[in-house]
Amino acid sequence: MNWAEHLESLQEFVSIPSVSTDPAHRPDMDKACQWLCSWARQQGLTAEIWPTAGHPSVYVETRPLPDKPVLLIYGHYDVQPAEDVELWTDPPFRPTVREDRLYGRGASDNKGQIWTHCAAIQSLLAEGPLPCQIKILIEGEEEVGSPNLPQLLEERRDRLNADLVLVSDTSTAVKGVPTLHYSLRGIVIFEVHLQTAGRDVHSGVFGGTSPNATHRLAQLIARLHDDQGRVVIPGFYNRVRVADEREKELLERVPFDAQVYQEFIGCSELVGEAGYSTNERRWFRPTLDCNGLGGGFQGEGSKTIVPARAWAKFSARLVADQRPEEVLECCRRWFEPQTWAGRIDFRADHGGPPYLLDPYGPMSGYLDKARAALRQAWQQEPLLVRHGGAIPIVSQFQTILGLSTLLMGFGSPDDAIHSPNEKFELANFRRGLHTSRLFLSSLGNLRV
Amino acid sequence: MNWAEHLESLQEFVSIPSVSTDPAHRPDMDKACQWLCSWARQQGLTAEIWPTAGHPSVYVETRPLPDKPVLLIYGHYDVQPAEDVELWTDPPFRPTVREDRLYGRGASDNKGQIWTHCAAIQSLLAEGPLPCQIKILIEGEEEVGSPNLPQLLEERRDRLNADLVLVSDTSTAVKGVPTLHYSLRGIVIFEVHLQTAGRDVHSGVFGGTSPNATHRLAQLIARLHDDQGRVVIPGFYNRVRVADEREKELLERVPFDAQVYQEFIGCSELVGEAGYSTNERRWFRPTLDCNGLGGGFQGEGSKTIVPARAWAKFSARLVADQRPEEVLECCRRWFEPQTWAGRIDFRADHGGPPYLLDPYGPMSGYLDKARAALRQAWQQEPLLVRHGGAIPIVSQFQTILGLSTLLMGFGSPDDAIHSPNEKFELANFRRGLHTSRLFLSSLGNLRV
Repeated sequence: MNWAEHLESLQEFVSIPSVSTDPAHRPDMDKACQWLCSWARQQGLTAEIWPTAGHPSVYVETRPLPDKPVLLIYGHYDVQPAEDVELWTDPPFRPTVREDRLYGRGASDNKGQIWTHCAAIQSLLAEGPLPCQIKILIEGEEEVGSPNLPQLLEERRDRLNADLVLVSDTSTAVKGVPTLHYSLRGIVIFEVHLQTAGRDVHSGVFGGTSPNATHRLAQLIARLHDDQGRVVIPGFYNRVRVADEREKELLERVPFDAQVYQEFIGCSELVGEAGYSTNERRWFRPTLDCNGLGGGFQGEGSKTIVPARAWAKFSARLVADQRPEEVLECCRRWFEPQTWAGRIDFRADHGGPPYLLDPYGPMSGYLDKARAALRQAWQQEPLLVRHGGAIPIVSQFQTILGLSTLLMGFGSPDDAIHSPNEKFELANFRRGLHTSRLFLSSLGNLRV
Repeated sequence: MNWAEHLESLQEFVSIPSVSTDPAHRPDMDKACQWLCSWARQQGLTAEIWPTAGHPSVYVETRPLPDKPVLLIYGHYDVQPAEDVELWTDPPFRPTVREDRLYGRGASDNKGQIWTHCAAIQSLLAEGPLPCQIKILIEGEEEVGSPNLPQLLEERRDRLNADLVLVSDTSTAVKGVPTLHYSLRGIVIFEVHLQTAGRDVHSGVFGGTSPNATHRLAQLIARLHDDQGRVVIPGFYNRVRVADEREKELLERVPFDAQVYQEFIGCSELVGEAGYSTNERRWFRPTLDCNGLGGGFQGEGSKTIVPARAWAKFSARLVADQRPEEVLECCRRWFEPQTWAGRIDFRADHGGPPYLLDPYGPMSGYLDKARAALRQAWQQEPLLVRHGGAIPIVSQFQTILGLSTLLMGFGSPDDAIHSPNEKFELANFRRGLHTSRLFLSSLGNLRV
């Protein structure tokens, strides 16, 4: 395995400023696509550029192998902008190796991680035939919310047919400890707009007699949780799957330093639902947060009005087996009848289901192979944990392609993705490359 | 009395676009000053332009009369902008008479009202010597908050010496019913800034464990009032003067249609402190309103964060004999220790004391003369009521000059001041002119 060559290729890949948000970088997006295709064809692989209404996706396919599993690897070649150049030690698109790290925009998110698998495939191909068929889908719009991916998955359903999706676009749960994420939280987003009167009125002439929308909104929000930190909305916890003993054992293996966690947030105490640990609260339990609110006078100085209108934005995080539309409906049914507060306008926004790959269910064979590969490459027991966030593409693989996804992140929690001085740990690159080779090889032993 | 001539002069006065907020109207401000001085000198009166750091004031003085009361009449020649010209039926600075009303910016606020007294003085002078000395102070910065008036009062304290201030810059409490206001509410203004964490964090990764500033702010605001609508802050009601039976009788004489009031606000029910009527709540009781609040994500769409910061602006309305600094201190002492909510930054802004001219106290002689004049001119019993708003200049006359103020408004509640199609009821102009003549004449019978 030619390590220096793989690193050099990655540096080339990172040096292309494929910023999807900025139309000025449109030629760089094309350049990144061409670069990936060119690499694939050099390896003797089929490579196609799949156009979308936005930036295209790159699709690479290895030779079909009957009776062997088909693995679909997903990644993205687009990166976040790097406009705050003065905050970078090295120019963001001149990737630089220092202290066994590769610095550059996209080094970790996601070029380094997707390239880890490409390099593994290249090194396996150099040794002989691949143990199973691999399909690679590398999209160009992840950083703008993958707006055209669902349609692409629909259109290319047959080509993308596989047994499992592998995504390396996350970080290890703890720095240096290999991690498989087997669950993501879902989400529902909504706004509540409250109107208590036809107009803002003068707080001198009418104050003390006219209903104040900011007071009423505050009362609504204050009532959303009880004094045990539980959401009071009836049905909010419906269908929540209770973690069994085996899952709790997995959770207990995750090193967690509450002090470090709290210092990162910068709060004087951690909060949450009574009866659950911090990691249970963020991974196993649904939550409801107001993400922003406003009402009345917002400018500098003062304006002595009794405000007639106020609003709040909310997001609820869901866990298996909750359904977004049901939770949204519970929220609607709680807010809308609160007419004592005023006229309630409940505005549902988008949602996404939670995701859970049962670590002891029918896909556990793949999970075991992945754990074994991680264990051998990193020389330590991998963590198998849930994740609190949402990765919409994982739900889309599930709902559109009917495929389960394994989340095998090679990023490190301190990689500064989306921030200045993004970097990729070269130790993770080497271990990841080793892991990928081991995992791909072991899939050859599975029969489907 | 030459009615047509007085109306013509008022139209001339209103036609000057003396908009104090707009530097482009600086020459019009000077023009208004010159116009007033020129009128005064034509009547044989002393007229001076008093410069300030902003727009100047006009000062007019009649001949001193030993042993007679000295009346200081206050008004302002500056007007609100009238930029939404397309919403006006007639051009705002081309004053037009229709249906016994004079339409134009400033027609009611305050040119028509101050001119009512000027016209009365002119007509009395035409008949012979005045019954008492009158001083008229007409400022040019009322619509921008009278920032330079306190210093002017300090500088001109001796010249402005008087027995009583008369201000006609309010509306009758009920359309067509003559009104004397004998009290104003005071005000304190403050902001509360709350911080629960060092940073906004991702609502997926941290949601359910990190304290949410918008939730905490909502809880604080929701706790400010009890379920009886009373402010829970200890000491908030200290020094509140309880209305005696005579004041309650005055209040009961005020016609009040809750339905009309509620429809104006556009709310489904009126609110407030239990045990008090709507007019008691807004005139006799202190109140506390949040005037605006914000926190977290304020833009379009969604941003799934747990907000670390939130803020709210408040104004409290005070009644006699409350002291702004004491109420502010009560509020500070309530908010600051609520550290369960996060780090509280209590920011005190300006305040102003309440004002009360005891209708049965030492100034009641003047009040009786004013009521008699109103009764005769309007041929009905005048209302003697409190006012819920604050007029800072009235407090300044009290604190700087040591003078009580009588509020005798000739505006009508539907005059649309500060709005398009501002108008002045010519019936009020005629009755006001008659009232002013009667009142000034009756002062000659008082000895000081």
